[in-house]
Amino acid sequence: MNSFNDLTDFSNDEIDNLIDLANQLEKNPSPNVLKGKVLSLLFLSPSLRTLASFQAGMSRLGGGSFVISPDMSIHGLETRHGIVMDGSAAEHIKEAVPVIASYGDAVGIRAFAERENIDDDLEDIKFKNLSSLVDKPLINMESAIQHPCQNLADWKTMDNLEIPKNGGKFVLSWAYHPNALPLAVPASTLIMAAKRGMDVTVLRPDGFALPKSILEKATNEATKSGGSVLESDNRKVAMEGADVIYAKSWSSTLHYGDQIKDKLLREKFIDWCIDEEWFNTAKKQCKFMHCLPVRRGVVVSDGILDGPRSIVIEEARNRMYAQMAILYKMMKG
Amino acid sequence: MNSFNDLTDFSNDEIDNLIDLANQLEKNPSPNVLKGKVLSLLFLSPSLRTLASFQAGMSRLGGGSFVISPDMSIHGLETRHGIVMDGSAAEHIKEAVPVIASYGDAVGIRAFAERENIDDDLEDIKFKNLSSLVDKPLINMESAIQHPCQNLADWKTMDNLEIPKNGGKFVLSWAYHPNALPLAVPASTLIMAAKRGMDVTVLRPDGFALPKSILEKATNEATKSGGSVLESDNRKVAMEGADVIYAKSWSSTLHYGDQIKDKLLREKFIDWCIDEEWFNTAKKQCKFMHCLPVRRGVVVSDGILDGPRSIVIEEARNRMYAQMAILYKMMKG
Amino acid sequence: MNSFNDLTDFSNDEIDNLIDLANQLEKNPSPNVLKGKVLSLLFLSPSLRTLASFQAGMSRLGGGSFVISPDMSIHGLETRHGIVMDGSAAEHIKEAVPVIASYGDAVGIRAFAERENIDDDLEDIKFKNLSSLVDKPLINMESAIQHPCQNLADWKTMDNLEIPKNGGKFVLSWAYHPNALPLAVPASTLIMAAKRGMDVTVLRPDGFALPKSILEKATNEATKSGGSVLESDNRKVAMEGADVIYAKSWSSTLHYGDQIKDKLLREKFIDWCIDEEWFNTAKKQCKFMHCLPVRRGVVVSDGILDGPRSIVIEEARNRMYAQMAILYKMMKG
Repeated sequence: MNSFNDLTDFSNDEIDNLIDLANQLEKNPSPNVLKGKVLSLLFLSPSLRTLASFQAGMSRLGGGSFVISPDMSIHGLETRHGIVMDGSAAEHIKEAVPVIASYGDAVGIRAFAERENIDDDLEDIKFKNLSSLVDKPLINMESAIQHPCQNLADWKTMDNLEIPKNGGKFVLSWAYHPNALPLAVPASTLIMAAKRGMDVTVLRPDGFALPKSILEKATNEATKSGGSVLESDNRKVAMEGADVIYAKSWSSTLHYGDQIKDKLLREKFIDWCIDEEWFNTAKKQCKFMHCLPVRRGVVVSDGILDGPRSIVIEEARNRMYAQMAILYKMMKG
Repeated sequence: MNSFNDLTDFSNDEIDNLIDLANQLEKNPSPNVLKGKVLSLLFLSPSLRTLASFQAGMSRLGGGSFVISPDMSIHGLETRHGIVMDGSAAEHIKEAVPVIASYGDAVGIRAFAERENIDDDLEDIKFKNLSSLVDKPLINMESAIQHPCQNLADWKTMDNLEIPKNGGKFVLSWAYHPNALPLAVPASTLIMAAKRGMDVTVLRPDGFALPKSILEKATNEATKSGGSVLESDNRKVAMEGADVIYAKSWSSTLHYGDQIKDKLLREKFIDWCIDEEWFNTAKKQCKFMHCLPVRRGVVVSDGILDGPRSIVIEEARNRMYAQMAILYKMMKG
Repeated sequence: MNSFNDLTDFSNDEIDNLIDLANQLEKNPSPNVLKGKVLSLLFLSPSLRTLASFQAGMSRLGGGSFVISPDMSIHGLETRHGIVMDGSAAEHIKEAVPVIASYGDAVGIRAFAERENIDDDLEDIKFKNLSSLVDKPLINMESAIQHPCQNLADWKTMDNLEIPKNGGKFVLSWAYHPNALPLAVPASTLIMAAKRGMDVTVLRPDGFALPKSILEKATNEATKSGGSVLESDNRKVAMEGADVIYAKSWSSTLHYGDQIKDKLLREKFIDWCIDEEWFNTAKKQCKFMHCLPVRRGVVVSDGILDGPRSIVIEEARNRMYAQMAILYKMMKG
């Protein structure tokens, strides 16, 4: 495996194999598999789970890792091309990224959306620019529009809990949040659930529809897998018979990059905080999913997070095992 | 071993066994013992020795570790319960701690005292709240009232130097410091020395008596071990025949959490800076101990730190071996 | 090997042996060689390549490492001697350095020039003070006047590309930079190239001559190795027949430590940005070297960095292998 960037680059059989491997590595310690191997980790955006789970995963497989992030004592990194670097940035990514890559057997990069131009973000221009500088196996640790490690972990989590593929109902719900958040998780999660063969409803208020290209990509995946994709702004209808509600806030694509207009719009939907009432029309055992970090009392109630519906810790825990499978495929032998 | 939180949870025989193991690991490299095992390290308070010695110790045993601390590029962590998280903190410890724990085979947590309410700190409420979120073997890396890794290292240091248990005299001395410092080290060190069977004198100026419950716990340990616990504000008397003086500044319990009143009180004792004169009535070879970091010329003179009495580097070095014994007991097999 | 501080501490045969070992470790994974060994890394100055390459190198040899730097959540470190520590610094290097050293089998320290007194910096007083506190094998990770790991990597890079030793022409060129930079890289690189037996020309504008003691040391090395050392302020003459141009900005020794006067002087030479025209009189295949980080469009043109002349990524990559050879020699067996 030379790249782990987009779940749709893999067939469902390939994903099943990856998850089988992840389950196997979860059960059987394999501390010699990546002996002497190194994972380079470049975080251009903040991280807790991703950093911890990649470092822990490499250790469990017998390898090592190192972390570079701009909050460390390094000089600022310039990303613009053709610029005269007479400002504060002392190093260009055109040097920093190949150098960091040269020390590893594989590379993980995290770079959130710039959120200036929606087309650039939907095309993942920034991440593609970074990727083009790497000549090693590369893992997307979350970019403007992808979060494939989260997607694989979520797939595994649902498999482990025997949440059905075909026939299973997956509600991806917008939730309130004080800030305008990126599209990476909702977009890639929607596509993951559709690809898994589930009947997916995107539940969101007016003004928060996901971009058309994302919905089309998801529908395309659903067609191949026997799933479906719908949109709704009606909680009761959307949640009817749901196996899973996956909560995530995201910014309005109507005012992309405009914090003020986005805020004015989102403030109307401060009641989109998921609590037990939302589950009235869902399946009895309907689960609550979230990629974390999550704001309690804002995105979801304490009751849901602390109750039996929540599988958010399990999702986070599966990040490590899903990633160990990827690392194994990339660096073994 | 499922918890290393308080030295008094262990019998003196168990502590002797731990120190035997630490001495053994110091002499014989054991780089396969924790192969593929992971230690999760969560620092909610600053660290140098603790971070370095735990990471080095895990490497020496063949395992790995990762560090999460709020000074890294993560979003702020909320610790209050039942709160609506619409401020700057993006993640609650109720998610962060279980997630971090889920990546390790054991977990270390550091969380200093809040220093708002002395009863909460004496009960170690904050650390207990954090501990309750961990379902793995847990190491206290310093809390409001405990610093058991330091205590075990200090015990080992005295053993290695053949400083007597029964009959040995241990002076725990307050020292001047510009800031009001927590009680964790003085409280847990006092109890350690008493439990080791030593005759302990707490030397401190008026207004800086340690809390009654701590003195009672220490006296109780002394009764069991054949030691004793006294208080004094007289240097000559306290130091008479001493084998060890252990210096540490701490805040006044009279003005707990009140920086201004505490400062007014402590400024009177700026001469409590330990120098050679303090040793006039002590045993000739009386040693100087401190947990570090220590302020030169404030807590203790350069002469003492740079002279033969000081064993502070040895104490710090023994942190690693003491902790390796704990890690071994928690994760081996 | 107990110290890696100055390339001139080693004979050319010893350096050849180190590079042979580095080449060998590059080809053959050796993940058991430093099993259970620990490298302590203390960064008192910023780093990207050095931190990453040392951590990766230790992992590749089966060992571990830890990093301490003041940008982490530790208390400030005091470096002055005999001072009363009643300010913000809570720990003195006289404790911090021996403690950090005590956890490792070898120690790396980075501490850039203070740039207050040129004689102190030429004598490497600050680094010597730090070194004197370490009783383990010690690696200079860049000090006021040395950068031996970079020097060894550069030597290896030229060897691998078959750039001639005797008879090879090496131009060390000053370049413009908005800030007054330290002398460590130009000084130690000049001496490295002279020691390698090359004909070295230091190309720099008026006012930017390197210190006399450095030129003398280089000339001395050249005499022994069959090389030569010249100075020039004429690009065409200097570059005539060059095999390599090694660019680096450095401060004027006329106004050492005086940022304002230095700036006034350097602003006259803003056109010292290396581009293709500089190579007119050089050998056709003349290479461009730089230790990185490098400012594009300021020190060197995009065209050179992105073209076939540049071997800067190769230099950075060789840092890891050169350092692995040092670590092997220091800690093996």
